[in-house]
Amino acid sequence: MTETATEFDVLILGGGSAGYAAALRAIHHGLSVGLIERDKVGGVCLHYGCIPTKAYLHAAEVADSARASETFGVKATFDSIDMAAVRDYKDNIVQGKFKGLQGLLKMRKVTTIAGNGRLISENQIDVDGTVYSGKHIILASGSVSNTMGLTISDKIITSTEALQLNYTPKSAIVLGGGVIGSEFASAWNSYGIDVTVIEGLDSLVPNEDPAIIKQLTRSFKKAGITTNLGVFFDKVEETSDGVKVTLTDGKEFEADICLIATGRKPNTENMGYEDVKIPMDNAHVAVNDRLHTGVGNIYAIGDIVKGKQLAHRGYQHGHFVIEEIMGNNPLKVEDRNIPGVTFTTPEISSVGMTEPVAKEEFGADNVETVEYNLAGNGKSSILGTSGIVKMVRQKHGPIVGVHAIGDRISEQIGEAQLIVNWEAYPEDVAHFIHAHPTQNESMGEAAMMLNGFPLHA
Amino acid sequence: MTETATEFDVLILGGGSAGYAAALRAIHHGLSVGLIERDKVGGVCLHYGCIPTKAYLHAAEVADSARASETFGVKATFDSIDMAAVRDYKDNIVQGKFKGLQGLLKMRKVTTIAGNGRLISENQIDVDGTVYSGKHIILASGSVSNTMGLTISDKIITSTEALQLNYTPKSAIVLGGGVIGSEFASAWNSYGIDVTVIEGLDSLVPNEDPAIIKQLTRSFKKAGITTNLGVFFDKVEETSDGVKVTLTDGKEFEADICLIATGRKPNTENMGYEDVKIPMDNAHVAVNDRLHTGVGNIYAIGDIVKGKQLAHRGYQHGHFVIEEIMGNNPLKVEDRNIPGVTFTTPEISSVGMTEPVAKEEFGADNVETVEYNLAGNGKSSILGTSGIVKMVRQKHGPIVGVHAIGDRISEQIGEAQLIVNWEAYPEDVAHFIHAHPTQNESMGEAAMMLNGFPLHA
Repeated sequence: MTETATEFDVLILGGGSAGYAAALRAIHHGLSVGLIERDKVGGVCLHYGCIPTKAYLHAAEVADSARASETFGVKATFDSIDMAAVRDYKDNIVQGKFKGLQGLLKMRKVTTIAGNGRLISENQIDVDGTVYSGKHIILASGSVSNTMGLTISDKIITSTEALQLNYTPKSAIVLGGGVIGSEFASAWNSYGIDVTVIEGLDSLVPNEDPAIIKQLTRSFKKAGITTNLGVFFDKVEETSDGVKVTLTDGKEFEADICLIATGRKPNTENMGYEDVKIPMDNAHVAVNDRLHTGVGNIYAIGDIVKGKQLAHRGYQHGHFVIEEIMGNNPLKVEDRNIPGVTFTTPEISSVGMTEPVAKEEFGADNVETVEYNLAGNGKSSILGTSGIVKMVRQKHGPIVGVHAIGDRISEQIGEAQLIVNWEAYPEDVAHFIHAHPTQNESMGEAAMMLNGFPLHA
Repeated sequence: MTETATEFDVLILGGGSAGYAAALRAIHHGLSVGLIERDKVGGVCLHYGCIPTKAYLHAAEVADSARASETFGVKATFDSIDMAAVRDYKDNIVQGKFKGLQGLLKMRKVTTIAGNGRLISENQIDVDGTVYSGKHIILASGSVSNTMGLTISDKIITSTEALQLNYTPKSAIVLGGGVIGSEFASAWNSYGIDVTVIEGLDSLVPNEDPAIIKQLTRSFKKAGITTNLGVFFDKVEETSDGVKVTLTDGKEFEADICLIATGRKPNTENMGYEDVKIPMDNAHVAVNDRLHTGVGNIYAIGDIVKGKQLAHRGYQHGHFVIEEIMGNNPLKVEDRNIPGVTFTTPEISSVGMTEPVAKEEFGADNVETVEYNLAGNGKSSILGTSGIVKMVRQKHGPIVGVHAIGDRISEQIGEAQLIVNWEAYPEDVAHFIHAHPTQNESMGEAAMMLNGFPLHA
């Protein structure tokens, strides 16, 4: 074994959202930090995930807005999408944020260590032959696309390749109707691509509340996106001029390209975890409710911990673990109270329990729900969007879930997550004033409905 | 005196935001309601204010988006604004909401009484010769444009006429840089009109926090809006081909049209209020902190009560007074904790104390502030907007003010107002998770900064 090069208070394996958030929080507490990253700090979220996809989705919004301009009295003409220019716009955003993050890490004196890390003992990580040690070790190695054994090519692609396209295909099959698949389907449809979503489960975005799923399904249909639900795919083949997907029921779909959006799996292979007896739960690292692995001073955070694969969950894990190391007994936010946003057209916001989950938890008779229709919301009419805000409460108890769908509705998640995390009662929200005319009024209206006194409904 | 035609539990003079909110809430409690309106239910907000102006501002956004489309990789061309079509789009929204409101009032069995109401006794209102009586009377007669004695013509106009224009003038002077003036200046600038704002006070939107004012002023300058601050106008004259505004310092400005946006005054003239000894504070109706006038069972709500002239304040007043009549001891939201949104480019959200107000309240040493720059916020970069979120707290105490500026930032007001009204401490917000990548993260970042542990700043 090589000699230990450096010892840190905290040594972090993975410089994605979870890892760098932990690094920065540790520095705030005066700890020394080594942050190991094999690719680029910022990780999947910054380089291949959240940020670049949202740039693509904003380009889609700009295209839709130009197409619909006449509706608003504006004379403008939509011509086409310049896919290479969308990529450049995206690259520019990503590069800016990447530089910002690098600068921040440097300024705060986080030691970033480039290379492939491998856990070799309870307090040591080998990075391409150099051994670093840490009084505490945090595993944050993230996730990778689950390609279901398919070979990635120029026609069969993952989101990473999709974000590098320099041409606009005429047609595309999206394998998987979860968040990632639905977002790409939505953006590509706005780009004028003929999109088919194939999802083995019975619905798009299956983790959402049924009322939300219904609306999204309807919107996709109206937008001309084809969906084939409830049958898994059997094989994906390249043809002379595209791809062919065959389902287990024999049905075939052809298109120019196929996006594999069948989920992401924890990046835990060949990281040395098993060698150091880190307990695993299939591919995930198993942790207790304080994110400790049970081995030495080793914690695990982010996508390698079973649960929602979300950058902001990673941030929170990173903060949590450092506060835990500092002995500050931090508050743990339950996975189900971590907010989620999906940037399809229309967008989705959700936090807390869906109606079925709440009914399972409290019993069907002990749950109340309301659906406020955005048709009653002035700003939504001005934007030309439809949708709903659904609130779920425990009868005589707090609001335990908020689920919304509509253009731009993602930004309502802030108030929604405070309501759910603060365990607010409808009257705690209903008594306060929501500014007119905003989409935000719909949150107030839903709370007022749940409180028995709707204003505009 | 004519005989009483009908007696209601609650008789409301004015069918605007305040009046109809009171009417609907009263119905919920089983009270009988007469709602007197001389024009159209929905009032200024629906027909001449909030709703139509936001439609105009959305058309402006659509135009700006088309102009900037290349930035996002979208090939689209902005041609022009079709002012008559913008008006039609606006009319369509307003008509839809108007029909909805009429339907709602009818369904809920609110008796709407068309005509000019005049208070004639402690429990009677004369409507064009017919007398109605109410066990409780609520005065909600709203406000009208303050035209500063100027004669309205086709070139010297108020917001009402501005919303009926069927052509796009080449140039416009906006007299008044408050919320209404700034919103029109912003929309018209996006329409390609050469705009000059003349404001007698030293700044645009003078009630906002200084940091917000600074950013808006900079944005207006960058957008090519001319501003002349700190000198009042002396006269406004029509010329052969437009208007000429002369300031008290002799400076002259010429343009095709001039918008008078010098504020709104309570609509309390010739309403009989003085005859019934309703106490007045200049043109406002004077009320106690339960919105009671001190005369009989007469309350006053909305714009005739001194304070923020906002539709949602009217709603809240309406709800409050009915709960008060019902003996439910409702919570009064202080005027300064009523949220405000301004739909300029960039937009403004604000609730609670500005920094100067907080320093006056608590002493300069007992106030802490942070400014989170949206340059660090991924979604804002994707939208191509700059701006800030500023939070103001009492030292060792709660967050007492949130002020933000940036494109689309108006929708952050929901979380902001909950924070301020719930008297949250920074740690109450900082511990929770803001969804990535949203503009809403900026609220979390500001709270984390105030809590001593920023994530990305």
